Amino acid sequence: MSRSETPADHDTAATPEKTRHEAALFELLRIPSVSADSRHKGDVDRAADWVEARLTGMGLTVERLATPGAPILFAQSPPVPGKPVALVYGHYDVQPPDPLDEWLSPPFEPTVRDGNVYARGATDDKGQMLTHVLGVESLLNAGGELPLQVKFLIEGEEEVGSEHLDAAVAANRDKLACDVVVVSDSSQFAPGVPAVTYGLRGIAYYELFVEGPKQDLHSGSFGGGVTNPANVLAKLLAALVDSEGRIRIPGFYDDVAPLTDRERAEFARLPFDEERFLKQLNVDGVSGEVGYTTLERRWARPTCDINGLWSGYQGEGAKTVLPARAGAKVSFRLVPDQEPEKITAGLRALLEPLVPPGAKLTIKPHHGAPGVKFSLESPYMEAAAAAIEQGFGARPVYMREGGSIPIVGTFARELDADVLLLGWGLDDDNTHSPNEKFNLGDFHRGIQASAALWKQLSECGMRSADRGMS
Amino acid sequence: MSRSETPADHDTAATPEKTRHEAALFELLRIPSVSADSRHKGDVDRAADWVEARLTGMGLTVERLATPGAPILFAQSPPVPGKPVALVYGHYDVQPPDPLDEWLSPPFEPTVRDGNVYARGATDDKGQMLTHVLGVESLLNAGGELPLQVKFLIEGEEEVGSEHLDAAVAANRDKLACDVVVVSDSSQFAPGVPAVTYGLRGIAYYELFVEGPKQDLHSGSFGGGVTNPANVLAKLLAALVDSEGRIRIPGFYDDVAPLTDRERAEFARLPFDEERFLKQLNVDGVSGEVGYTTLERRWARPTCDINGLWSGYQGEGAKTVLPARAGAKVSFRLVPDQEPEKITAGLRALLEPLVPPGAKLTIKPHHGAPGVKFSLESPYMEAAAAAIEQGFGARPVYMREGGSIPIVGTFARELDADVLLLGWGLDDDNTHSPNEKFNLGDFHRGIQASAALWKQLSECGMRSADRGMS
Repeated sequence: MSRSETPADHDTAATPEKTRHEAALFELLRIPSVSADSRHKGDVDRAADWVEARLTGMGLTVERLATPGAPILFAQSPPVPGKPVALVYGHYDVQPPDPLDEWLSPPFEPTVRDGNVYARGATDDKGQMLTHVLGVESLLNAGGELPLQVKFLIEGEEEVGSEHLDAAVAANRDKLACDVVVVSDSSQFAPGVPAVTYGLRGIAYYELFVEGPKQDLHSGSFGGGVTNPANVLAKLLAALVDSEGRIRIPGFYDDVAPLTDRERAEFARLPFDEERFLKQLNVDGVSGEVGYTTLERRWARPTCDINGLWSGYQGEGAKTVLPARAGAKVSFRLVPDQEPEKITAGLRALLEPLVPPGAKLTIKPHHGAPGVKFSLESPYMEAAAAAIEQGFGARPVYMREGGSIPIVGTFARELDADVLLLGWGLDDDNTHSPNEKFNLGDFHRGIQASAALWKQLSECGMRSADRGMS
Repeated sequence: MSRSETPADHDTAATPEKTRHEAALFELLRIPSVSADSRHKGDVDRAADWVEARLTGMGLTVERLATPGAPILFAQSPPVPGKPVALVYGHYDVQPPDPLDEWLSPPFEPTVRDGNVYARGATDDKGQMLTHVLGVESLLNAGGELPLQVKFLIEGEEEVGSEHLDAAVAANRDKLACDVVVVSDSSQFAPGVPAVTYGLRGIAYYELFVEGPKQDLHSGSFGGGVTNPANVLAKLLAALVDSEGRIRIPGFYDDVAPLTDRERAEFARLPFDEERFLKQLNVDGVSGEVGYTTLERRWARPTCDINGLWSGYQGEGAKTVLPARAGAKVSFRLVPDQEPEKITAGLRALLEPLVPPGAKLTIKPHHGAPGVKFSLESPYMEAAAAAIEQGFGARPVYMREGGSIPIVGTFARELDADVLLLGWGLDDDNTHSPNEKFNLGDFHRGIQASAALWKQLSECGMRSADRGMS
């Protein structure tokens, strides 16, 4: 069903409430809360203050969970006996904005073009997180009580691996106790095709350093006589993937949960337009693991991607230098049931023997998280589908996502709760890229779906037996 | 023979003339004439002005050869009938100073420590070039006429491949006509072991760009589904060299002039201390082409070195980005009789078939020059040896050099002249590295050797038959 036919569109016209909601979003987007960059620590704190004030303002009791890292906000409405408890998770930190020169408007000056708001964090995750804050706020403003207890857990380190959240969750299990966790930090399948995401990939992220001579050398006087760390790094990186796109780390595929026939069939049924996909990215084709479709490779197969690379002279002109060191950032997307720790061991086992005399390799693990997959049978899944239909005017499809939300696995394990991944974003939102955007229509539809969700969930039983990770 | 025993050391005590000579050197070193960086164009011009003023001041007729690039200075003393003509070549431009934070004193603030002057360009080539300017100047100041006509050709683009010099030489063949070219832009074999260098490696320098999606993407949502340009670049770079350190470009070794038994024997006789070499570089070993010694690999075998590498996120922390592009600077050192043009064709033939769908490879040749080797039989070689013995108090050894001085081949071809490569530098001068230095004792010994050289050369015949490239 195309967007223009959806009921949600009848009310895309500006209303005082929508204007208030957009004003709130733009305020938060103006705060450059880049968690990866220590120079932005003050901005990260400011974003936390902003969210805390909003949650307090709508009458929730708010506190900050003890953490050595960026503030972790916890808020809750009064308990509603006999009804399930819902926990909303989101994050107020954002990715670094670089490369800055590719932004059409400043990353922290929200700008509306064609019904989209452009800003770093618009969709990941400030905009999507706010749909639930504002969805609850609108029910409360309407004078109503909430039909069930809603809790919020909003952190500021998601973009750097949620370093301190696992500990905070473990330390506050009772406080966070809930039946279902709601996370909006992903995408719809396509415009007008909302989705419930039932699986996420995990990640194992590394930094590789190769050190050679104590300083840069003249590549003429020393070249050939000395081990070149950049040459070594290239060899190591090339050794990670074979000619069929399979990762060469020993045992890498041992624990990979294979795609079921039902999954492959459902993926194949989805309206995925490969031609449009290529045009969107402006590439003449794609490549990857042999034997899998593009969607399968993006959602349900593990990967190896170089995320960063540096060595020697990167400036203008030709410097004949033999670099003293070279480095790379490399990450592997994992699928159930791969374990990051095993990947780290395998990575060392593969690379260390390949380092020649005169070079020293250091492998620094950054962060890791296993992939997750949830049962489609839980009643909360059905409640989510109904709420989405009310907000978006279309039944959601069930899909998986290639990205990682490390904390989702933690919730499933620590809180023994179902997790509903309700993405309001779109595939071309430029998450983690220049010109990140969020469709304002989807922003408002998300708020409506959120308001509807609390009612739908309140009609579910308190804990179903068949729930949990499949 | 150790430095302290050499006659030259009897006069390392300061004299008014030495003080004047060092003042001149430091003045020139203070000018940051970095030719690779267009922001330093003004400084490159200032360095040219300084050298021009010095040459004019000593009574030579100076002019600038027409060029679209940095100034090319030509100077000459009056002709001396019946005597050979000598042409001194040097350059006043320098390498970029980065990485800046590794310098112990500012790169453009000459600082003396342990009898060495530390500054970018100290040895490459401002200091060595000046020994001839001041060697000639001292003879002229002594009221004497020069015993033969001396010409100077001093350029400002050597560190970026002498882009415009070949054309200038070709256009001024008559003006530059000479019997012998003198170049001091290399090293002694060791402290107290001066050398005449009879061979240089050539170079073929390239920039590789791999372009993928039109912008950086989220490595989670897109990883595995899209070709990663950084992964592709690593594969291409790793494909350049095999496990035995041999370069895999088709036909790469076809034209390589093999080391003669005499050369291998003479290299083996040289007092090269591999242990000291490793300690100097702070490495636990070296690696390279199998079957050759370290000196052979550095002087007389071709190489492949990555000089620079960049892609994606290089900042602090872990950014999960699938980069839109990746690039590398790669250079091959060539030996006689390899041709850069053939290397370029072979490089394309090797790499282009390895580029997968979804990635675009661009190979940009930067500059190229063939390697050269001169006959040890020319009378000018003997004259140089005698002059060096007067200046340094030791007979020179005959060696080759791994670096390239592209213009040397041009002189041999265009001017049909012998080229004397008389290096006053040392192996650990940190050429092209932080903390570049030049020994002030060698600076003054070089000036004495230069003064002696003009007399020695004036006693040679005008052109010997057996000269030229071997």
